[in-house]
Amino acid sequence: MAADPATRDFVFNHTMIRVCDARASLDFYTRILGFALIEHQDFSEAGFSLYFLALGVDVEAMPADEAERSRWRKSIPGVLELTHNHGTEEQAEFRYHDGNAEPRGFGHICLSVPDVVAACERFEALGVTFQKRLTDGRMKGIAFVRDPDGYWIEIIQPTPLAG
Amino acid sequence: MAADPATRDFVFNHTMIRVCDARASLDFYTRILGFALIEHQDFSEAGFSLYFLALGVDVEAMPADEAERSRWRKSIPGVLELTHNHGTEEQAEFRYHDGNAEPRGFGHICLSVPDVVAACERFEALGVTFQKRLTDGRMKGIAFVRDPDGYWIEIIQPTPLAG
Repeated sequence: MAADPATRDFVFNHTMIRVCDARASLDFYTRILGFALIEHQDFSEAGFSLYFLALGVDVEAMPADEAERSRWRKSIPGVLELTHNHGTEEQAEFRYHDGNAEPRGFGHICLSVPDVVAACERFEALGVTFQKRLTDGRMKGIAFVRDPDGYWIEIIQPTPLAG
Repeated sequence: MAADPATRDFVFNHTMIRVCDARASLDFYTRILGFALIEHQDFSEAGFSLYFLALGVDVEAMPADEAERSRWRKSIPGVLELTHNHGTEEQAEFRYHDGNAEPRGFGHICLSVPDVVAACERFEALGVTFQKRLTDGRMKGIAFVRDPDGYWIEIIQPTPLAG
């Protein structure tokens, strides 16, 4: 069935998850997964900040003008939005819910990488927490790592693993 | 900070949510939001099915070969994966957790549309449930609708609303 023309140019722009410690999450998503921070909004009075991240972005080529950059950020697919409610990082017992224990709902985000074996070896070397290593279970081409809040991140490659 | 070259060509491929009634969700995401079903996997013995959806895809131009289509599907950003555990659609009391009540975590997905006012008028006409209309609250350029499971979907447009 063809899509309704009224939905032409709709873009699946972003996925939002809440994070307990913005500094830890930004370090994880940029240094380890390669995302770039493309927009940052602080709402100090309301007590939260938003961080918009994207992969494969040439930071030097982003629009320098703030309004133009915001328009661009809202036009592309594959953006990850992190919401940080101020102060949660100082609450030792604070935890967000990853969606994979009851009550279930959200499952994971997924990164596709050119070489899943090389990517997982690098994650191991960087001390990333694994939910499922490539060698665990039956699906040998798929790994799951966990971000600082415990959200699951599936790691795949587009092509079948060399046998 | 420049991204580690080891993350070159990493793609934020998809976001996965569990849905109670695959038929209702597929109808919502395709007919109302304009997604195309680009891959479908049934795991009958394990009791679940996966549906991969994307926006702005020319279905006619998708690779016809199954392996080639799978490779392509894993290479693009902005894919939505729906997981359907068989039988939940027949349990009247079954509910997934949208992440926005306790325990919180996942927040929403977001669609960017060329004209948010026109999009919301169409959603109203189609009987979509709103979490926040454009006229609700202070943020007049943003709406939230809910999918059949109650997951929040933010609707924005890249440019500021005409005043």
